[in-house]
Amino acid sequence: METQLFVQIALNGWNQQVARAEKFFNGLSDEAFQRTVGAGKNRIIYLYGHLTAYHDMLKETLGLGTATHSFLVNDFLKNADDVKANMPSVAELRQYWAEVHNELNVLFAALPAEDWFKRHNAMTDEDFKKDPTRNRLSVLLSRTNHIAYHFGQLVLA
Amino acid sequence: METQLFVQIALNGWNQQVARAEKFFNGLSDEAFQRTVGAGKNRIIYLYGHLTAYHDMLKETLGLGTATHSFLVNDFLKNADDVKANMPSVAELRQYWAEVHNELNVLFAALPAEDWFKRHNAMTDEDFKKDPTRNRLSVLLSRTNHIAYHFGQLVLA
Repeated sequence: METQLFVQIALNGWNQQVARAEKFFNGLSDEAFQRTVGAGKNRIIYLYGHLTAYHDMLKETLGLGTATHSFLVNDFLKNADDVKANMPSVAELRQYWAEVHNELNVLFAALPAEDWFKRHNAMTDEDFKKDPTRNRLSVLLSRTNHIAYHFGQLVLA
Repeated sequence: METQLFVQIALNGWNQQVARAEKFFNGLSDEAFQRTVGAGKNRIIYLYGHLTAYHDMLKETLGLGTATHSFLVNDFLKNADDVKANMPSVAELRQYWAEVHNELNVLFAALPAEDWFKRHNAMTDEDFKKDPTRNRLSVLLSRTNHIAYHFGQLVLA
């Protein structure tokens, strides 16, 4: 019973942060995505692609599926924001955001609660034995904090 | 076993965010606390007091203890940042931050894992029956995201 409960609490937190960010992005005109979160700092479009690319990779980190939007990695994860980069359009990014989060929703809904306590793919069985807190659930909580971190910046834009 | 594990994961996340913020604040000169996180936005000193005041109140929200620094509420929670406010000095705030987080560490260390699943003080027994995910643990996760949110802003200052 409690296993189910913690997983639900962790997923509630994730869903809240995703929904809050999504509402923010959906409320912006395409032009507004060129605004920065501070003088000389990231543009909104960069953080939009950054969260999309990182969440796309999350499927692999959790060992639940394969990345379907790896073409975003270069512009939004490997490199800093660059106005000269040949980025996808905002309309395309809106589609990618929806696709990635729909994929995650399907995978999360299908995962039995106890499987959230298994190790994530970025660590070995041996390390996991030493520290069983480094499981899928801890990755989900960490990614939830990561959204909050960037959302705090987005509201300054 | 899993109850203990989940509480540990949630506490690890909280401790990481607190430590990251603390390291940031400890690395700043007193003068640097007057910098803002963006043009016309909050000063660092405000966010320092804001997190301290909010975490002081967390003891009451969780029903684990009493607030010991309520004198911070007016300047840092009820009101927006105001350069004309008669705020405590940075040296005083450094002391309050340490006091509040030490108090929390003691309370958290003494709380049996299963007690994290009890309802928090901001809700009724009846509401808790309807939604048992609204427990102390969900409050801790939410406050952890709140630190990340403001930390994302602090790094822009």
